[in-house]
Amino acid sequence: MSTAISPLALPFPELPVIAGATPRVARARYKEWDRCDLSFVTLDAGTTVAGVLTQSKCPSPEVEWCRKTLVLGQARALVVNAGNSNAFTGNRGRAAVEAIAARSAAHLNCQPSDVFVASTGVIGVPLPVDKAEAGLDAAFGAAPTNWRQIAEAIGTTDTYPKGAVTKALVDGRDITLVGVIKGSGMIAPDMATMLGFIFTDVAVEAPFLQAALSAASDRTFSCITVDGDTSTSDTVLAFATGKAGNTPLASDDSAGADAFRAALADLCHQLAQLVVRDGEGATKLIEISVEGAESDRSAHRIAMSIANSPLVKTAIAGEDANWGRVVMAVGKAGEPAERDKLSIRFGETQVAVQGLAVADYDEAPVAAHLQSQEIEIGVDLGLGEGRATVWTCDLTHGYISINADYRS
Amino acid sequence: MSTAISPLALPFPELPVIAGATPRVARARYKEWDRCDLSFVTLDAGTTVAGVLTQSKCPSPEVEWCRKTLVLGQARALVVNAGNSNAFTGNRGRAAVEAIAARSAAHLNCQPSDVFVASTGVIGVPLPVDKAEAGLDAAFGAAPTNWRQIAEAIGTTDTYPKGAVTKALVDGRDITLVGVIKGSGMIAPDMATMLGFIFTDVAVEAPFLQAALSAASDRTFSCITVDGDTSTSDTVLAFATGKAGNTPLASDDSAGADAFRAALADLCHQLAQLVVRDGEGATKLIEISVEGAESDRSAHRIAMSIANSPLVKTAIAGEDANWGRVVMAVGKAGEPAERDKLSIRFGETQVAVQGLAVADYDEAPVAAHLQSQEIEIGVDLGLGEGRATVWTCDLTHGYISINADYRS
Repeated sequence: MSTAISPLALPFPELPVIAGATPRVARARYKEWDRCDLSFVTLDAGTTVAGVLTQSKCPSPEVEWCRKTLVLGQARALVVNAGNSNAFTGNRGRAAVEAIAARSAAHLNCQPSDVFVASTGVIGVPLPVDKAEAGLDAAFGAAPTNWRQIAEAIGTTDTYPKGAVTKALVDGRDITLVGVIKGSGMIAPDMATMLGFIFTDVAVEAPFLQAALSAASDRTFSCITVDGDTSTSDTVLAFATGKAGNTPLASDDSAGADAFRAALADLCHQLAQLVVRDGEGATKLIEISVEGAESDRSAHRIAMSIANSPLVKTAIAGEDANWGRVVMAVGKAGEPAERDKLSIRFGETQVAVQGLAVADYDEAPVAAHLQSQEIEIGVDLGLGEGRATVWTCDLTHGYISINADYRS
Repeated sequence: MSTAISPLALPFPELPVIAGATPRVARARYKEWDRCDLSFVTLDAGTTVAGVLTQSKCPSPEVEWCRKTLVLGQARALVVNAGNSNAFTGNRGRAAVEAIAARSAAHLNCQPSDVFVASTGVIGVPLPVDKAEAGLDAAFGAAPTNWRQIAEAIGTTDTYPKGAVTKALVDGRDITLVGVIKGSGMIAPDMATMLGFIFTDVAVEAPFLQAALSAASDRTFSCITVDGDTSTSDTVLAFATGKAGNTPLASDDSAGADAFRAALADLCHQLAQLVVRDGEGATKLIEISVEGAESDRSAHRIAMSIANSPLVKTAIAGEDANWGRVVMAVGKAGEPAERDKLSIRFGETQVAVQGLAVADYDEAPVAAHLQSQEIEIGVDLGLGEGRATVWTCDLTHGYISINADYRS
């Protein structure tokens, strides 16, 4: 945790115990600090797993490890290292991940492939295996802790710990999902990768868990941006212990499948919003809704073009209803758009309709809206039925200070 | 011209008269200011023209006009308005462009399609036709001026006037090319579109001029970025009066074709650099060279991904040799890349080779290089023969101040 708490921060909620998942933390001291920086969550036998990983072409060895082991669909442990991302470290980095998996497997008497590993922090320095192993041993011998401690132990440049909870009724059983997440840029300099972990007691087969997580991710984690930069290490993993005792979910036809999917989507939405709210230097949360596009995919690209535009983000920071910058960002997306069909609103107020500024529109509600912490920009392309919603934050002096005003 | 002059500014060079091209300026007073904001360059009969226009899907009516008239390949006048971009103004904007072309054509006794129009400034407000027509009349009656006055009259948020000159020997004749350009972001807030205009006395057929300009633009104007934002109005036009008396250039086989192409490319390079040097808030000019990519196109995309990364740009602002951010930007480009073949240098110093940080590299020359005004980042992907070079500037508090610390 670093610097002042984001003005958009939300309080950490009460997160219940998830049967079959036991969180522990330890001090591996990956950096010169006195805080827990290694998280070790053991999972009872029978736990299924799904994941969504960075699309970076230069991923960390942790990401490569998870991509390989996810195919097997089962998990007995999660290890998260904070302070060193182990990315761009060649064979030594790969060896570190293998050593962590082997040590954990020895403790738990499971296969190394049952162990999932994620790391966040400085790039280019191989993760020190001795510190990792000592940390793992310490964690294994420590008393179980709670999810808040995990949320804090996985954080790096985050300004507040982030967690969320949802519940659902599945096959007559109350099931619970908890999640913790870290990240304050899509990546950051020394450290700020997005890592999210979800734990639930539902019984669900791995392929269906994967389908549900991928679908939820497409509408949540894939719809947020702080600076358009993508980490080498972004990882979201969902673990299901099956302790709720429902008939295992296997497809959309399973009893309670819809309820589970909705609860998982809600949890992912909450977690994704928490990351944007901790965007580096953020003072405003911006929701951008695009409709009337030729397809949902086209709408998503246009929305992300707006969300990643430095000129749009600085306009919002300046509380300036500068819709000309929105037009620019629509135009540069490269997607079908016709100026004379384009309409734009800030909050509830239309500022341009069908390619023309609204004559004498009432600026007062727009000005009032822009002064609030949560800003809405709406774009209607007037072409088709495609729609998408994405979230970002404003671009402020705070971002520059965090990222430029220091030497690594 | 606004705010403090960029620390990267270059002095305005001596630009010679171009036979057959006569520049004039006037006060149309598109904004509440007392400066020349309308440029009117008349061109003798026989002048050929070529152009490169924004790829925005929401272009200004000026861009649409030029795209249509460029097909004819001939020009008698250029009109440039500063202070109002006329973009996103529907039928009224189109009517304003047509009125300007008609009025100019009446003065010159030519076709409206011989008149090229470009505008830069606020989006969403139709260009006032009465001011444009009065300005045109005033300009037509005014004494000819010089290229520096044109460079100043087309400027908006620019902090200094920008011009360049090159010469070549074509078919036994000395030919001259001059250029003026404006822009300080790829677009800007109220106004900052890139508009560039080139005038030469060479005789050249329009299709070959277009081919030469397009090729030069691909290596220059398409290789610069300030903030990744693309204007609705970006325009580069090249006018050739033919007064040098050479046998008109018609193809690569024409005498002097190579010399002309090289001179034009050099001029475009100079002009493009001048824009980056006036990037909003810029304190450092950054050259990013990518080699070893699978193709030139792939290299270009990777280079632009690095150049547009807020985290890379803030690192340079902070004089921080943060090569991890370069790895991130390579990874997110979506182009073929292999971590274990990737090498990165700052200036002449390798900091990472084949996927690993160089052990105990000498930081002193890197630190010294990063303190200079002109920074080089080199990336070798180790995959193929593709290469590209692009230019950008750093991202500083100055950019935020210019774009966020005001209300429009």
